[in-house]
Amino acid sequence: MEYYQLNQTNIVDYLQSLPEAHQRFSCFDNLVVQEINDGNMNYAFVITNKRDSNQSVFVKQAPPYIKVLGEDWPLTRQRMTAEINALSYQASVCPEMVPEVYYQSEILSLLIMQNLSKHAILRTQLIQGRYLPRLAEDLSTFLAETLFYSCDFALASIDKKAMVSKSSNQDMCKITEDFVFTYPFEHHEMNDYNPALSQSIIDSIQKNPNVRAHVAQMKYMFMNKPEALLHGDLHTSSVMVNMQQTFVIDPEFSFAGPMGFDIGALIANLYLNYFSHAHKSSAESVNYSQWLLQTIDDLWYKFEAKFLSLWAEHEQSAETTFMGKDLTGDSHQTFRHVFLQQVLSDSLGFAACKMIRRILGVAKVADFMQFEDENLRAKLETQALKMATIMLVNRQSYTNIADVNKLAKHTSSI
Amino acid sequence: MEYYQLNQTNIVDYLQSLPEAHQRFSCFDNLVVQEINDGNMNYAFVITNKRDSNQSVFVKQAPPYIKVLGEDWPLTRQRMTAEINALSYQASVCPEMVPEVYYQSEILSLLIMQNLSKHAILRTQLIQGRYLPRLAEDLSTFLAETLFYSCDFALASIDKKAMVSKSSNQDMCKITEDFVFTYPFEHHEMNDYNPALSQSIIDSIQKNPNVRAHVAQMKYMFMNKPEALLHGDLHTSSVMVNMQQTFVIDPEFSFAGPMGFDIGALIANLYLNYFSHAHKSSAESVNYSQWLLQTIDDLWYKFEAKFLSLWAEHEQSAETTFMGKDLTGDSHQTFRHVFLQQVLSDSLGFAACKMIRRILGVAKVADFMQFEDENLRAKLETQALKMATIMLVNRQSYTNIADVNKLAKHTSSI
Repeated sequence: MEYYQLNQTNIVDYLQSLPEAHQRFSCFDNLVVQEINDGNMNYAFVITNKRDSNQSVFVKQAPPYIKVLGEDWPLTRQRMTAEINALSYQASVCPEMVPEVYYQSEILSLLIMQNLSKHAILRTQLIQGRYLPRLAEDLSTFLAETLFYSCDFALASIDKKAMVSKSSNQDMCKITEDFVFTYPFEHHEMNDYNPALSQSIIDSIQKNPNVRAHVAQMKYMFMNKPEALLHGDLHTSSVMVNMQQTFVIDPEFSFAGPMGFDIGALIANLYLNYFSHAHKSSAESVNYSQWLLQTIDDLWYKFEAKFLSLWAEHEQSAETTFMGKDLTGDSHQTFRHVFLQQVLSDSLGFAACKMIRRILGVAKVADFMQFEDENLRAKLETQALKMATIMLVNRQSYTNIADVNKLAKHTSSI
Repeated sequence: MEYYQLNQTNIVDYLQSLPEAHQRFSCFDNLVVQEINDGNMNYAFVITNKRDSNQSVFVKQAPPYIKVLGEDWPLTRQRMTAEINALSYQASVCPEMVPEVYYQSEILSLLIMQNLSKHAILRTQLIQGRYLPRLAEDLSTFLAETLFYSCDFALASIDKKAMVSKSSNQDMCKITEDFVFTYPFEHHEMNDYNPALSQSIIDSIQKNPNVRAHVAQMKYMFMNKPEALLHGDLHTSSVMVNMQQTFVIDPEFSFAGPMGFDIGALIANLYLNYFSHAHKSSAESVNYSQWLLQTIDDLWYKFEAKFLSLWAEHEQSAETTFMGKDLTGDSHQTFRHVFLQQVLSDSLGFAACKMIRRILGVAKVADFMQFEDENLRAKLETQALKMATIMLVNRQSYTNIADVNKLAKHTSSI
C-alpha cells in the first residue's frame, strides 16, 4: 500500500478494511465522521457510531506538508513515526496517561486511537478558572516515569544509545530551533508583536547581549543533550483533563532531548496562565492565581520526589549503578541532589524561552489572546517577559519553585 | 569477500591484489613485513620494499576481539568503521595532521595508510625531555578545526544530526564509561594500585561523595553531549611528532561527544608528564617542567583563538547564524565568551577524570611507570591525584590555564 490522504468520504471504507476497527464498531453503516480543525499540522477525525456513542475512535493522519499552510509548506511525515514511537514508549511506562492506540500505520502516517470525548483541553480549563485537583499529581507522574525510564540511570548504555538513534525527528526539532529559540529573539519577519507592546521591553530582550547569550545556551542544550525521550511540545494544549483523569496527547515533536525541556514547557504555560488571572482583583481570581502557583510548586516537588524514588528503587534491584558502588553510603545521594538541581535550572531556562516566544514569536496563547484589549494584553505580556528574563539569567541560582513563585507574584504586581 | 585475519604470511598476497597498493610499491617481490606489537586492540603491520625504504605502508586491522586479551574478549569491529569515518573527516578539515589513507575496507575492518617512519610517539618524546616547538600550535589547530567543523555552529542542524547518527561507536564508548568514569572510583577488581600509594589518598577520591558526584556529572556529560566529532582517545600516545610535523593517529574511540573530552585528554597527559619531571631539581628539569606548563597554556589559548576565529569567519559568510541576527553588535561575542568558558571547565573536568583513572585504574602511563621506585611513583601519583581532585571540583571557577598551572606547581612542591 502507498500513502494516500484520508478524508470524510473515504475514511469509513478505510476503517472497514481494518480488523482492528471491527473490534471498535459493531457496524459500519451508521458512522458519523467529524473533521477536527483545531490542529495546525495534521488531519484529524472523530468517527462515532450514531447508534452507540461509546463506539468512537479518533483518527490522526500527517500529510507531507503543514496542514494549515497547505502543500506549499512541505514537511516530512517523519513526525508521525515519532508520535507513534513516543506513544508506544509512554504507554509502556504510564499507560493510564496516554490515549490507547488501536491501530498505527507508518505507511499512511496514521494513528487510530481512543477518543477522549469526556475530557477537555487543559488550557481551556485553566482559562476558565477550573480547579483540577489531580493535575500536579498526574503530570509529575508522567514526567518522572517517561523521563526516568528513558535516561542513562534506567537503561543500559547500549539500549539508551539505540533509543536516541531511533527517536531522531530532525524536521520537528528544526521547527523548535527556529520558532522557539531563534526568530523571537532576532526581530524576525515571522514574529508577531502586539502593537501596544512597548519597543523598550522588546529591546530589553532582543538587544540585551546577556539575555541573547543565555537563550543561545538553551538552544545549544536543546540540540546537544539527548538525555531522555521527550514529549517535545508539552504545553497546556497537549494535556486533556477531567476531574478523574489526565491524558497527555500529541507527542509529534518527540525526540531525545533535555529533561528540562518538557518540564519547562509545562511550567511556562502555567505561568502564562497565572498572569492572565493575577491582574484581576476579585477574590476568585486571587484564589485561582494562588492555586496555580501552588500547582507549579507541587508539580516540581512531586516530580523530584518521584524521579528520585524511581532512581533509588531501580538501583536497589540493579546489579550495577550508573556511578559505581557507593563506598560511604552518601555518594549516590549527593549526585542525585546535584543532578536534580541541574534539571531544575534547565527547566527554568527552557520555561523562560517558551514564555518569551509565545509573546514575541508567531505562536500565541489563548490565555492572553482571550483579551481583546491590546493594552491589557501588553501589560500582561510585559509582566511575563520581565519574569522570564530574570528567571532565564538567574536559572542556576534557584533551588526551589517557591522563589520562582515569589518572582511571578512580584512581576504580576508591577 | 568475507572478513578474514591478515597475518605475516598472507598480507603480501592481499596487498598485491589491490590496485591501490600498486601505486605504493613498484614490485612485490622484496617486501618486508614487520608486525607492530605495541597496540592493545588491533593487529598492525609495516610493509616496506627493502630495495627502497620510501615504499612503505602501515596496515591496521581490527579483529572481532581485543587483540592482547584474545578471542575470549569479544569486541565488535565497529571500532574500525569509526576510525575510518574519523580519519576521513579529520583529513577533510586538517589533512596535514592525519596519516594519509591509501585504502580502507569496512568488510575486512582494515586501513592501509601512510607509514610515519620519521616520527616518534609524543609520550616517549616528553618522557625524554625533548622540546617540541610546534606542539601547541599544531595540536590547537587540530582541536579547533576538528571540533568547530563538526559542531552546530558550522553544520546545518540536519547535517549535524546525521553526523551524530553516523558516528555511533557504542562498544568503545562503553569501555570509556567503565574504565575512565566508573571502575577507578568504586574500588573495582579491574583497578591496579601502586602498593606504595596510601589508602588515605585513594579514599580521598573513592570515599568522597562530592568528588564522586562530580565524576558522575562528567560521565553523564560524556554520554549526553554529542556536540562534535571527537578523536575520543587523544592522549600523548595518539600523537606522533618530529621537529617539523605533528600527526594525530588512532581515532578508534571516535564518536560524537563533548569537545572538552578531547582537549581534556591532552591536558591530562601533559600534566601527568609534568609531574614526572617537576620533582627533579636539575636546571634541565626545571626548564622542561616550565616548558610543559607553557605548552598547556599555549594549547588552550591558541585553541580558543582559532576556534573563535573559525566561528566568526564562518558566520560572516553564512546566511544565518546559530543564535540569530546580532542587533547590537555584541551579542555574538558575549555568547562566544560564555561558550568557550564552558568548554574550558568541561576540559578541566575531563582532564581530572583522565588523570585519576591513569593512577587508580588498570591503564597506566609510561611517564610514571618508567620509575621502578614505588615510593617515588606514589609521591608523583599523590601529587597528580591531589591536583586532579581540586581541578575537578573547582572546574567552573577557572577562567584561564595560568591558574591551573599554579595549582600544578603548588601540588608538585608539596
